[in-house]
Amino acid sequence: MARGILTEPLTRDAFAPFGDVIETSGDPTMIINQGKCGRYHDLAALDMAGANARAGISLFLSEKRTLPYLLEMVERHPLGSQAFLPMTQAAFLVIVCPDDNGKPGHPRAFITEPGQGINLHRNIWHGVLTPLSDPGLFSVVDRIGDGDNLEEFRFEEPYEVVRGS
Amino acid sequence: MARGILTEPLTRDAFAPFGDVIETSGDPTMIINQGKCGRYHDLAALDMAGANARAGISLFLSEKRTLPYLLEMVERHPLGSQAFLPMTQAAFLVIVCPDDNGKPGHPRAFITEPGQGINLHRNIWHGVLTPLSDPGLFSVVDRIGDGDNLEEFRFEEPYEVVRGS
Repeated sequence: MARGILTEPLTRDAFAPFGDVIETSGDPTMIINQGKCGRYHDLAALDMAGANARAGISLFLSEKRTLPYLLEMVERHPLGSQAFLPMTQAAFLVIVCPDDNGKPGHPRAFITEPGQGINLHRNIWHGVLTPLSDPGLFSVVDRIGDGDNLEEFRFEEPYEVVRGS
Repeated sequence: MARGILTEPLTRDAFAPFGDVIETSGDPTMIINQGKCGRYHDLAALDMAGANARAGISLFLSEKRTLPYLLEMVERHPLGSQAFLPMTQAAFLVIVCPDDNGKPGHPRAFITEPGQGINLHRNIWHGVLTPLSDPGLFSVVDRIGDGDNLEEFRFEEPYEVVRGS
């Protein structure tokens, strides 16, 4: 039997313990390009640790998932933050867990609004990329460098993520 | 009288003198997430120079433009590269110029395919962000830091950018 998790809307306050919501909320930080463009400035805390570490841009092209979604494992990156910036105007699912003595605690599942991206802080437990529509194409800003930057955890009993709102 | 410029398709070869094309061409660098996701790894040469420089993520929300487009000025960033990653599956216009003794030479205008982003190399002359449809929403990875990172150049005679293919 899978344990149920209800999805929540993605907001900065709710997501603050896990990372940054990258969105155009409120007024732009500055207006550029002869008044034709708003810049929302420096929205993510990039954090690249360890040997020869730097930020890089990669693309992820993922199969879409559907709700209800069976969550069997999570992972974390001890050496770097990881930002997911959708290249479509579609919602995606973001699963994160607080840490509980080195293991993932009870998961939370967020559904983005179109136009929202996220930056997972370093070492935050999270589910793999889960777009909810095709194409599941994302720009990813994460750590390029040496060292083991992946830890995985498989739940003894999976969770079932169900749309909550 | 404006001088005409014909748009060209955006390809890595054609754009190489100016920057990186960020796209999912060819096979993924690696397959992750239990076979469900392709990672196209480290596609952009981020180059942040000068005092306290680092890469950051911002969002740009721009008015759309239409073709023919009147190009009156270009700019460049002497201290950092600048990546534009569309958050829609829409084409946009990319205008760049070779340098000609410290001034912009003859412009070239590229039209992206949906799903393509770009990274302008440091100090490359370029037109301002020109989406061709709404919403003109882009993730931007550019330099956060001290110093004057903007140089602008206004053409004595503008160019008219016309669809070429």
